[in-house]
Amino acid sequence: MKCTRCREPAEIHLRAHNSAFCRECFVFFFRRRVQKAVERTGMFEGCSRILVAVSGGKDSLALWDVLAEAGHTTVGYHLALGIGSYSDHSLETTRRFASERGFELHVDSLAEEGLAVPDMMRATRRPACAACGTAKRHHFDTAALHLGCDAIATGHNLDDEAARLLGNVLHWQMDHLARQRPIMQPTHEKFVRKVKPLYLTSELETATYAFMRGIDYVVDECPNAVGATQLTYKAMLDRLESASPGTKLSFVRDFLERGVDAFAAREGGSAGTSCQQCGMPSYGLLCSFCSLREAVARKAASAAATSAGTARAHDS
Amino acid sequence: MKCTRCREPAEIHLRAHNSAFCRECFVFFFRRRVQKAVERTGMFEGCSRILVAVSGGKDSLALWDVLAEAGHTTVGYHLALGIGSYSDHSLETTRRFASERGFELHVDSLAEEGLAVPDMMRATRRPACAACGTAKRHHFDTAALHLGCDAIATGHNLDDEAARLLGNVLHWQMDHLARQRPIMQPTHEKFVRKVKPLYLTSELETATYAFMRGIDYVVDECPNAVGATQLTYKAMLDRLESASPGTKLSFVRDFLERGVDAFAAREGGSAGTSCQQCGMPSYGLLCSFCSLREAVARKAASAAATSAGTARAHDS
Repeated sequence: MKCTRCREPAEIHLRAHNSAFCRECFVFFFRRRVQKAVERTGMFEGCSRILVAVSGGKDSLALWDVLAEAGHTTVGYHLALGIGSYSDHSLETTRRFASERGFELHVDSLAEEGLAVPDMMRATRRPACAACGTAKRHHFDTAALHLGCDAIATGHNLDDEAARLLGNVLHWQMDHLARQRPIMQPTHEKFVRKVKPLYLTSELETATYAFMRGIDYVVDECPNAVGATQLTYKAMLDRLESASPGTKLSFVRDFLERGVDAFAAREGGSAGTSCQQCGMPSYGLLCSFCSLREAVARKAASAAATSAGTARAHDS
Repeated sequence: MKCTRCREPAEIHLRAHNSAFCRECFVFFFRRRVQKAVERTGMFEGCSRILVAVSGGKDSLALWDVLAEAGHTTVGYHLALGIGSYSDHSLETTRRFASERGFELHVDSLAEEGLAVPDMMRATRRPACAACGTAKRHHFDTAALHLGCDAIATGHNLDDEAARLLGNVLHWQMDHLARQRPIMQPTHEKFVRKVKPLYLTSELETATYAFMRGIDYVVDECPNAVGATQLTYKAMLDRLESASPGTKLSFVRDFLERGVDAFAAREGGSAGTSCQQCGMPSYGLLCSFCSLREAVARKAASAAATSAGTARAHDS
């Protein structure tokens, strides 16, 4: 098979685009696709400094690479989740990626705040992904504010967006459907715009880009993702994609072109007040992250009291 | 496992309803579910005579049985499609079902009109299901009009509706989404209401009902359905249903409760004029069925001319 662009031998065949590319042309193709998505949506209009949320996986590192190569001013932000060796490896990979390229990287650690994901799970009995999501959103928001960034870019790819859209549709989550867009405008002065520049590039394409660019990324999935419904949705969509290439792309693109406006009228308002603890926007006295932090602290205090009581009982 | 209702040994376990039933209680359960769906939607309000479109499969025969048992005045209508032995067997099964119960049945035959499905396929080069659907809609509409019925009931079950909804959503078919309801009100005085009383009962439930009621039905799928996208969607939904029982039900029910209204504003108007050939409502000079009939006639005429030409050439 020959490269669609230069007729040299192709290295990758993209059925969804009915195209094949050699290494050089694929990198060109991928960057142009991201650039087009950025331009079409006006994603970075008026932005001077972009916070790139980097986990150490293929998507976020590929995103950082593409944005930096395109000449954007970027700041990497990594939140260490405290999920054992998976998190250690993710931090190490992210640090090496940044230092090899001389990129600015900021790191926060949930474990240092006493909020490692396993601790939050135990304290709240909520699914790991729910607590982790709350912590990430809070840290991304505050990091963007403190680092003077005017946009937060995340590495969500087409497969992520298609799986999320399928989940939202299967449950007819009207509010989520209204908000599922590649750009989320801030609903409060302390928030900044959130964007997903890879929303039309597939997982396969992003992985291929990372590989072809020689990016060393964490291949393992988060251990908490095993059995997640999102993965079932992805498997279903993979099957449809294989029977009819381009299904994921048209599902997400047509939704944004035709579907989302049907739900738009229902979009919720802004966060009404400020969190009494962290000062970030909040619907109640505490924002959802500070409520979570309180729950973990209460659990720790009650565990300490129980263990002190047990110790006294043993002493007496 | 015991029957949820009477504690006798159960014959069927319905994971989606977290229930199990003995034969007698399942029949009761199934009829009550259909009855509730009929009442909640006001499906037959003001109707005195229902045309039941019967193919000879489990869904339409179960539907006819349930409606007749519930005391509705029904008229069966079977359209013989001319798809070889599959159609012969379907007609025979339908006739036997009706005569054994003393039900009124009317039969039309596409082959007698020179429009057997294989002929329409050859003449129009459209997929079999498209031509067949056009022919069915036309015949159901005219039969209801001529037989003095004020509703057409079809056997579409929950699996059919879920697969159709998934297809409409994957392609964001806004107009189709606006119209996907268990009741379609007539858009013209020559049309009658179309209803789907089984829209919340699954294929498994309908097949079980038919089996438990001793209904002899055609088990084979239509030979033209092999490889149909609809079957891929059904397989996907079966997988989700197995991982999370109740998925299909909530997908369709929540769509009707929350989703469909988002699309409703876009619903199209009525058919504007009358077909010059058959007098039924139409968007153009000819309705889509009469256009199809013309295409088949043109093809037949041109084939006859070619063969006459060939015959003359051989003679000379």
